[in-house]
Amino acid sequence: MNNSNLQKAAEILGEVREKAPLVHCITNYVTINDCANILLSYGASPAMCEAYDEVFDFVKLSSALYINLGTFVKEQEQAAILASTSAKIHNVPVVLDPVACAAVPKKIQIINRIFQVGKIDVIKGNIGEIKFLAGQSSNVKGVDSLDNGEGALESCIALSHKYNCVVAATGEKDFITDGKNSAIIENGTKMLTKVTGAGCMLGALCGATCGADQDKFTATVTAILSMNIAGEEAFKKATSPGSFRVKLIDCIYELSEEKLREGTKITWK
Amino acid sequence: MNNSNLQKAAEILGEVREKAPLVHCITNYVTINDCANILLSYGASPAMCEAYDEVFDFVKLSSALYINLGTFVKEQEQAAILASTSAKIHNVPVVLDPVACAAVPKKIQIINRIFQVGKIDVIKGNIGEIKFLAGQSSNVKGVDSLDNGEGALESCIALSHKYNCVVAATGEKDFITDGKNSAIIENGTKMLTKVTGAGCMLGALCGATCGADQDKFTATVTAILSMNIAGEEAFKKATSPGSFRVKLIDCIYELSEEKLREGTKITWK
Amino acid sequence: MNNSNLQKAAEILGEVREKAPLVHCITNYVTINDCANILLSYGASPAMCEAYDEVFDFVKLSSALYINLGTFVKEQEQAAILASTSAKIHNVPVVLDPVACAAVPKKIQIINRIFQVGKIDVIKGNIGEIKFLAGQSSNVKGVDSLDNGEGALESCIALSHKYNCVVAATGEKDFITDGKNSAIIENGTKMLTKVTGAGCMLGALCGATCGADQDKFTATVTAILSMNIAGEEAFKKATSPGSFRVKLIDCIYELSEEKLREGTKITWK
Repeated sequence: MNNSNLQKAAEILGEVREKAPLVHCITNYVTINDCANILLSYGASPAMCEAYDEVFDFVKLSSALYINLGTFVKEQEQAAILASTSAKIHNVPVVLDPVACAAVPKKIQIINRIFQVGKIDVIKGNIGEIKFLAGQSSNVKGVDSLDNGEGALESCIALSHKYNCVVAATGEKDFITDGKNSAIIENGTKMLTKVTGAGCMLGALCGATCGADQDKFTATVTAILSMNIAGEEAFKKATSPGSFRVKLIDCIYELSEEKLREGTKITWK
Repeated sequence: MNNSNLQKAAEILGEVREKAPLVHCITNYVTINDCANILLSYGASPAMCEAYDEVFDFVKLSSALYINLGTFVKEQEQAAILASTSAKIHNVPVVLDPVACAAVPKKIQIINRIFQVGKIDVIKGNIGEIKFLAGQSSNVKGVDSLDNGEGALESCIALSHKYNCVVAATGEKDFITDGKNSAIIENGTKMLTKVTGAGCMLGALCGATCGADQDKFTATVTAILSMNIAGEEAFKKATSPGSFRVKLIDCIYELSEEKLREGTKITWK
Repeated sequence: MNNSNLQKAAEILGEVREKAPLVHCITNYVTINDCANILLSYGASPAMCEAYDEVFDFVKLSSALYINLGTFVKEQEQAAILASTSAKIHNVPVVLDPVACAAVPKKIQIINRIFQVGKIDVIKGNIGEIKFLAGQSSNVKGVDSLDNGEGALESCIALSHKYNCVVAATGEKDFITDGKNSAIIENGTKMLTKVTGAGCMLGALCGATCGADQDKFTATVTAILSMNIAGEEAFKKATSPGSFRVKLIDCIYELSEEKLREGTKITWK
């Protein structure tokens, strides 16, 4: 099972390059440029469309919808909810990053509203955010998580069952589950925490992979492996954050299915 | 005619460096930082002013007004229309980038309103957007154009006559016309399509050149030549998108009138 | 006095790395990504929280509040004023960058309102902005200052007395005062003027240092020394703006207390 799952995960990278999925992003203004650039480097096609009277139709054209709740303004909230209904009607995969949902109560309301009228196929957050959504206490500082990963997989599985979606919790280790199948990834580099929006960019990559393949669990694994391995490669070339961030985008571009298969530290359950 | 036109185009680069034109930008949040940085590197002075009660007076101080319709929110729409009236009254050149006007109907209304109450001196878009504005069908994907250039110059000339302005259509080849004189540029690198906002940045450069010289046709040629040649230079040093994007800004800074004259692949009509 | 002041200024860098202060930023969309990245590189923790119903509580969790008035939209204005009241109530240091206050009258109203209901501990602007706020004429172009520094320290001291806060005016030389003690810094590189947001990023660093140490005068010196010395180091490695900007972030990361002590050109008064 392991080898064929990893094989499938690597192949999804090729599908992204082949299909150039259109990823419709409604995301925060801090990292919106990075999300667009990483999608282009990855082989996808980014579109940052968030005007209320445009989003419903735009989702129809898209391969995936990526909603990121960081610094959400009122118009974005309305646009995201409407976009999610279009995604539900037109069967477009939806990836959600619940940024800082533990620190900001209103974001829970937005998430619940999206589940009411639309859908979410993948929730990708840090371990603190996932634990909070799953209903347990968590140790958060601002938008970052200080959680050490204990109980993380259990929280992911609980949240996956609660919302019937794929859940990914990122941290020193990354946990992904569809409620039945799970994976734990130990690749990556701490330098990713010195780049603002590494998590936001990862959510965008999940949009790309879910837009390229229907297997959203494995697609999410592909995206996380991609970011982590590109991060490791980049850190070999640049050990300070400014240069590292540039090399990260280069290494996303230079990723190959072979690189995703070799040197991965992944446990499947 | 050819040599003196190219000579003039190269000289406009020098005028930008000499005059440091103030380019008032009302543009999308995805690439606003890149537009500011490329203007500084080019030798111009960027100002991102879009509050409704500020723009009318700010245009008066500016050498040029650059309006980019990507991700336009309501306040920006109102500010852009008001800014364009100030530009008309105070004879400030206006450059417009009609991003995604084929995919989003409301943008046509904004463009028409600007022509009604204000003015536009240069429309700079991709081939798909220009063909759409000229009234013909076009092949677009999201915000990007899949058009191969056939009939592009005809569309530019038609649009130029329709709105009495300079029109530039960018793609594998770039077409520029004032309705009477035309130019086709074949410089550039495909790597520019892997950098989000290359088109937005180019529009900002058009603001700089039009702010430095009254000959808006040749000024637009200068800007497009600048981006293309800087792109070619950058690609010699960096072949992955992250590093390429950094080198692009370096090469804009390092451009010289000499570089614009040599190695250009331009046809004048 | 000199050596112990410089020693204190250098130590504050260490305090930032040790405490990782949470810097709550309400800032412009042009440079918001750069502000977040430079804070991470410096050793601080950035949070870009500006929704009206979130800011009051978020300030309570923060080590410092950084307000930057560039491209301020209505919601940001309301959020900033409310955030400043929370900062006053909860004794959180407030750093203000009055971007373009000379060119845009409404910004003076915002500053006065913040002083009425909240507080400002440090005003960090360019020399033109500081002179304008101090009530004298100034020579400004758009958002940049063409002032040569004459009378700058006097203006800083006057403004410091007027508002009972620390004032810093940046330019070819940088002037800092708390109304009683002053410092003049002559480090830096002109290349910083070719990077959009160098001033915005510096304001964010002031948020970090003021969030790490109660001595706001010396903390502001620390931040300005940090930016200037990192700039000098970066210019040794990259002399074009694209690469320089990347190296600047690297050099902020690589700063040490030793580097801040050696090679500084600072006069204490």
